[in-house]
Amino acid sequence: MRAKLEGLRRRLGAINDLNAAAALLYWDQTTHMPPGGAAARARQIATLRKLAHQQLIHSSMGRLLDVLTPYEKSLPYDSDEASLIRVTRRDYERAAKVPAAFMAQLSNHMAATYEVWTKARPTNDFAAVASYLEKTLDLSRQLADFFPGYEHIIDPLIDFSNEEMTAATLRPLFSSLHQQLVPLAQAIMANPVADDACLYQQFPEAEQLAFGLEVIARLGYDFTRGRQDKTHHPFMIKFSLGDVRITTRVREDDLGEALFSTMHEAGHALYEQGIRMELEGTPLAGGVSAGVHESQSRLWENLVGRSRGFWHFFYPRLQEVFPRQLGSVPLDTFYRAINKVRPSLVRTNADEVTYNLHVVIRFDLELALLDGTLAVRDLPEAWRERYRTDLNITPADDRDGVLQDVHWYGGLIGGEFQGYTLGNLMGAQFFAAALAAHPNLYQEIEQGKFDTLRGWLGDHVYQHGSKYQPSELIERATGAPLNIDPYIHYLRTKYGELYHL
Amino acid sequence: MRAKLEGLRRRLGAINDLNAAAALLYWDQTTHMPPGGAAARARQIATLRKLAHQQLIHSSMGRLLDVLTPYEKSLPYDSDEASLIRVTRRDYERAAKVPAAFMAQLSNHMAATYEVWTKARPTNDFAAVASYLEKTLDLSRQLADFFPGYEHIIDPLIDFSNEEMTAATLRPLFSSLHQQLVPLAQAIMANPVADDACLYQQFPEAEQLAFGLEVIARLGYDFTRGRQDKTHHPFMIKFSLGDVRITTRVREDDLGEALFSTMHEAGHALYEQGIRMELEGTPLAGGVSAGVHESQSRLWENLVGRSRGFWHFFYPRLQEVFPRQLGSVPLDTFYRAINKVRPSLVRTNADEVTYNLHVVIRFDLELALLDGTLAVRDLPEAWRERYRTDLNITPADDRDGVLQDVHWYGGLIGGEFQGYTLGNLMGAQFFAAALAAHPNLYQEIEQGKFDTLRGWLGDHVYQHGSKYQPSELIERATGAPLNIDPYIHYLRTKYGELYHL
Repeated sequence: MRAKLEGLRRRLGAINDLNAAAALLYWDQTTHMPPGGAAARARQIATLRKLAHQQLIHSSMGRLLDVLTPYEKSLPYDSDEASLIRVTRRDYERAAKVPAAFMAQLSNHMAATYEVWTKARPTNDFAAVASYLEKTLDLSRQLADFFPGYEHIIDPLIDFSNEEMTAATLRPLFSSLHQQLVPLAQAIMANPVADDACLYQQFPEAEQLAFGLEVIARLGYDFTRGRQDKTHHPFMIKFSLGDVRITTRVREDDLGEALFSTMHEAGHALYEQGIRMELEGTPLAGGVSAGVHESQSRLWENLVGRSRGFWHFFYPRLQEVFPRQLGSVPLDTFYRAINKVRPSLVRTNADEVTYNLHVVIRFDLELALLDGTLAVRDLPEAWRERYRTDLNITPADDRDGVLQDVHWYGGLIGGEFQGYTLGNLMGAQFFAAALAAHPNLYQEIEQGKFDTLRGWLGDHVYQHGSKYQPSELIERATGAPLNIDPYIHYLRTKYGELYHL
Repeated sequence: MRAKLEGLRRRLGAINDLNAAAALLYWDQTTHMPPGGAAARARQIATLRKLAHQQLIHSSMGRLLDVLTPYEKSLPYDSDEASLIRVTRRDYERAAKVPAAFMAQLSNHMAATYEVWTKARPTNDFAAVASYLEKTLDLSRQLADFFPGYEHIIDPLIDFSNEEMTAATLRPLFSSLHQQLVPLAQAIMANPVADDACLYQQFPEAEQLAFGLEVIARLGYDFTRGRQDKTHHPFMIKFSLGDVRITTRVREDDLGEALFSTMHEAGHALYEQGIRMELEGTPLAGGVSAGVHESQSRLWENLVGRSRGFWHFFYPRLQEVFPRQLGSVPLDTFYRAINKVRPSLVRTNADEVTYNLHVVIRFDLELALLDGTLAVRDLPEAWRERYRTDLNITPADDRDGVLQDVHWYGGLIGGEFQGYTLGNLMGAQFFAAALAAHPNLYQEIEQGKFDTLRGWLGDHVYQHGSKYQPSELIERATGAPLNIDPYIHYLRTKYGELYHL
């Protein structure tokens, strides 16, 4: 049986190598590749992903898992071996259910839609993408139907990136969140808007990048096992546990852009760099779900990186780097600027308080599209209507309305947005548990010390990789199931103090 | 039959994608990878290469080729289709003859030997590598024996990188070259040595790199289909015909290092960038042999890049970039400096005249090692003896003697060195043919125009990729079989003028 398990590890190692290679090809495409390489690169990535998929769903993999499953039951649930068999079987079964021809069709359609969207967005032309979006909706439903037995058709789509979550679990969670956030946002809006002009001066790129690296080195990002490059959209990407890279983008007239995206991506990277080396080369060596992953990027970016204590430590240093721009700006002004709350049209620019309202709108629209109560042609108007009622702001056009996010135009309908809000909720819940275990956490952050926090996260979240389901991980780490209370408490405390609510 | 050919193309496309991915992983390893990525990276590259090899030697590939071979005979020899079948069959047969287990053993041994050598060279410890080298010799012989029917055991090893060449063809070529070069070198040495101090001042890296890029852009290197990065050892690497990259290294106290390595690698790249796009994704889309490839790097680096006309055009610009260092150095002094001839211990630092003597020494020693007339333990002394007699210079230690080149310590014995000299010979032969077709070539070079030369090489060499065997290519391009006359004529003319011989 040990030989069988070794055989499984070897197969998984090869699949992992193919996926890691595809990831590097993508990283290179976005960072360094000359334009002439584009056509061949798309083909190369497709070849690697196809081979990895073929190897995963190969009948011999199924037979090996059949032999190993009884063995798994004889091992402790927590053991690496049992977890490996369990998680591989889940991945295998999920992959094997979808015909390769359908995956190819989906992938081609996504690429074509993305192409059309990149032109339709700047020209505000929803009509150009509408028929593509209808097809996306149709394919999303078809994909869900490969996983029969669902309650709501969105459930299998949610499950791809946030296992165990369903419409039935998310609806009440998001609905109570919505009930809490709308009055909080309104109470804040009743106050004068914070002055954030200090963030929009000229900040030379090289100094911005160097300061960002200084910050994340202090957070614990290990540069011997990673690096940062510039890309159009920031992301974190892993080629092995010893090579976890991040990217950022810089705007010289907007200090927040690179700074917070750097901390955000470093948060993702701290998770991956903190996975136990023994899991290397297996499907366990990665974050467990989109939501848990996002909890770490949000935790480091927002709960740490937008906290008063954090800037108590780092602001003098930032003033040293930009004396002309910030030398005469008090810490309090800067702190208020980076935490300015204001209803906005674009999700990615939203503040901590209103951000989740953007997500809830999208989630509700996805539910309605998928269950057929909303037609694609009526989507732009439904979008505007929800922004009017929820955020009291109306997009002047579709460019900053229904066309703003890549997700629907380069992926499925129903799979992605909820992960961002789950991340906010989970991040606050993890942070609250760490704080309960280490009441000095805020004082340490004020002194630029992050080892205790990172250590707690490492012990309770990072090291396990994807050994546990998200719900198991959260309960083990925090002693409670996922809930909105820590997040609401965090927002109320922070913004209550800021706005004297 | 067209469907079968399409099937062949599809399989070859996948193999090509795997090899391209492995190449990108290697490129990243040498340019950007953080140290923590090393262990996983080696494994990832090995996985991709193994998969590519498995797909090439798969029995279904053999069956497909069996079906296509009669079809090939019905097609014009020159056609892309016939060439594709012909070259694929050759690659398939070569790969299928070597058992995968042997390849794995060889690859492991090479990696281990390389590790030992990296420590043995700086400590001048030949004894530490001797037993490894004996094993390398043994494995090189075993590899040759998978290709029975050879005349000399080195023949199959030569054939891997320089098809059709054998000990019997190379011995007389190298021997007559040796006979011509030794007296030429001696005649030059009788003159006072050129003063090259102007090259060894302080030249800031950024300006060196920018100047190098300016030069190769003018030569015709297409930056929309390539880029340059820094590595420990310069190289050219291709991921597709639209993405052909080069690397260089810079020494701020040695102007020649980056400048000539940049032109050298750009020469390799011009070849790959000049291959017809229709051959993309097939085994035809690459240079035909190590020798022909090296002919292009040497041609652009030496015949063009160390010519008087070239610097007539570029030297004023170089003086503009480095006014303090070169402003008062006359063109003639600079020209003599970059063409200084002097016997030296290290091949990679050798001038155009003595370079091939280094190669001939290695080739003769490889023949003797392989046919058993020289034992590994006697190799260092044999090395010193040959340097004494051929170059009139004796290495003080093995570091700059038998331990200097990576080739024997990270590869086979018998496969590599001859390619460098073949490249010198072929480069001169191609250049002479281009000059015969375009007698104004030197005048154009003096005006910084390289389109005619690059056009001739594109038409006669580059576009064909590896459609023709090296000998066919040379005869088609130059009207004569490979011979030493153009090279000797080139050296005599250039150095005759320089040293009034």
